[in-house]
Amino acid sequence: MTDNTDKPLDLASLRQRIDSIDSELLRLISERADCAAQVAQVKTADDPDAVFYRPEREAQVLRRVMERNPGPLNGEEMARLFREIMSACLALEKPIKVAYLGPEGTFTQQAALKHFGHSAISLPMAAIDEVFREVEAGAVNYGVVPVENSTEGVVNNTLDSFMDSGLHISGEVVLRIHHHLLVSNITRQDKISRIYSHPQSFAQCRKWLDAHYPHAERVAVSSNAEAARLVKTEWHSAAIAGDMAAQLYGLDRVAEKIEDRPDNSTRFLIIGNESVPPSGHDKTSIVVAMRNQPGVLHGLLEPFHRHAIDLTRLETRPSRNGVWTYVFFIDFKGHVDDPAVAGVLEAVKQHASDMKVLGSYPVGVL
Amino acid sequence: MTDNTDKPLDLASLRQRIDSIDSELLRLISERADCAAQVAQVKTADDPDAVFYRPEREAQVLRRVMERNPGPLNGEEMARLFREIMSACLALEKPIKVAYLGPEGTFTQQAALKHFGHSAISLPMAAIDEVFREVEAGAVNYGVVPVENSTEGVVNNTLDSFMDSGLHISGEVVLRIHHHLLVSNITRQDKISRIYSHPQSFAQCRKWLDAHYPHAERVAVSSNAEAARLVKTEWHSAAIAGDMAAQLYGLDRVAEKIEDRPDNSTRFLIIGNESVPPSGHDKTSIVVAMRNQPGVLHGLLEPFHRHAIDLTRLETRPSRNGVWTYVFFIDFKGHVDDPAVAGVLEAVKQHASDMKVLGSYPVGVL
Repeated sequence: MTDNTDKPLDLASLRQRIDSIDSELLRLISERADCAAQVAQVKTADDPDAVFYRPEREAQVLRRVMERNPGPLNGEEMARLFREIMSACLALEKPIKVAYLGPEGTFTQQAALKHFGHSAISLPMAAIDEVFREVEAGAVNYGVVPVENSTEGVVNNTLDSFMDSGLHISGEVVLRIHHHLLVSNITRQDKISRIYSHPQSFAQCRKWLDAHYPHAERVAVSSNAEAARLVKTEWHSAAIAGDMAAQLYGLDRVAEKIEDRPDNSTRFLIIGNESVPPSGHDKTSIVVAMRNQPGVLHGLLEPFHRHAIDLTRLETRPSRNGVWTYVFFIDFKGHVDDPAVAGVLEAVKQHASDMKVLGSYPVGVL
Repeated sequence: MTDNTDKPLDLASLRQRIDSIDSELLRLISERADCAAQVAQVKTADDPDAVFYRPEREAQVLRRVMERNPGPLNGEEMARLFREIMSACLALEKPIKVAYLGPEGTFTQQAALKHFGHSAISLPMAAIDEVFREVEAGAVNYGVVPVENSTEGVVNNTLDSFMDSGLHISGEVVLRIHHHLLVSNITRQDKISRIYSHPQSFAQCRKWLDAHYPHAERVAVSSNAEAARLVKTEWHSAAIAGDMAAQLYGLDRVAEKIEDRPDNSTRFLIIGNESVPPSGHDKTSIVVAMRNQPGVLHGLLEPFHRHAIDLTRLETRPSRNGVWTYVFFIDFKGHVDDPAVAGVLEAVKQHASDMKVLGSYPVGVL
């Protein structure tokens, strides 16, 4: 080959080593795909409509990969590679079809690809209830919908859709989102009179903006990347955007991580038609309807406390079925197959006018 | 390591085998990342600004992977996994930044991710000359621009941008694109009066539509997925879209592969600041300015014929510098470092009023 560096031997032997690693990788990935094909055969022999994708199994594999990862790649990057390998092996049998809240290029698409890998077939829907309908109709295997933004709160459409649906939650995906105030090298930082960003990012940085730039005009644009681009030609403007846009446009960070809550993240749910067996590290989501009586919330929560079940979220929504009735969405650690959880749910039923388990599913791995 | 009997294993032992394969994969991918880090060290010792991404080396690795791939995964899928592994190893040192002709969710983004893997930082630009400017300014390492659609012809903006630019072509990506006429289960196929699709897809299926549905209204929408979605609720409509949309919406194919040219594909170029050494299977693109004299094209092409150099494309564009002068964009097999190619280029120079080598680069692997 024609590498003209001073140390051709070092490079050459490193490359030889990489080549022999690649041969091994090729063999192992192929063997893994063979095994996956055999798993599919065994399952189909028992049940022609068998499901090959197993969320609990995938979560276990990814957790083990991250625990044992020796570096230098970080755990997330390594898990991402394994997700792609599993996605490719699975697609060999039956590619997974996934509907998500579109349009393309949104965080929800990012969540869908993060969860299912790029061998899945993913298509955008215009509304959350459309995602539910496509999954219910069997046109796709799974749906991906946003359920919670740590700053803006709950996505009500998603909760409402669950009330009317027989679908199960089969997984969750969490994406972390950081925002910075960015300027270009022509910006006069003492004269910033206009700030560009996506409307959602404005909402997530509202307090910081009110405190630091109360008089600057806020101009909503279609994406944070677009905001960053605009700043390059306007000396009186700044943009709110993330790392990727800052890096690409070579913008400077006047202020970092300006989101109002430091743990700014968006949570997405995977919805499907089947319930998921325990993975060893699971969450359960339920919806409970209660009459509006004194002490109702206390009575509802007491069994969780008694059984030492860890609540991770509780949301209240007005019921659409009757006056003076409330609906609680509750997430907690554990799986419905755990005896303690089963005990809690029995107790909750006695307080509630209605209760539905939305699903038990692996805690988001990445 | 494992017994190689042909007898199908039970689920538990198959999964044990997958787990042990995964442990090996984890170890090997980590070792590969270590090697890549060492390669970077060796290079940086010689040159602090050394480039770690080597298009010719990556093409060689992918070609070998595809040649030796034993199945059951197909070669493209296996190469995609290796692309991601290499992308992750590279990002460990210095993530590659790529500008592409946006918006997000287009084929050009797909080409960028196909070529650089998902560990690259990719950002959309609004116009082709912006992609060139970002690469020239060093704000990104590479750019991705469409250059050729087999049905609609050449992307003139890209050719024009090359005339004014000092950038090199460092790679090419080819995406195949098939279109179908799709209907839903409520469609009355004898009453189709409206067809939805993206404007580009209409252009690529124009002849077929003129022959088969000359009187149907053609309604341009923002994407083929959107076209497919609309058809589900209109009994008198059909859509032109690809496999993915057909599968997702459960639409039937009234006619398959209706694109006017059966090899309908789009070709993209990777542009960068460095020239690429030979990979063993390369292409070269040149631009030649010629006075408009009798026999000029014959004189230009004769040296290629004489040296048995395979021309893959020839495009003519009017020059913007003078009257009666033409500019030819020529692609051919081989690398400028090949003696035969060097000989041809010497001969071409004698006929031309000007000649520029846009780049020698690996023939698209996938």
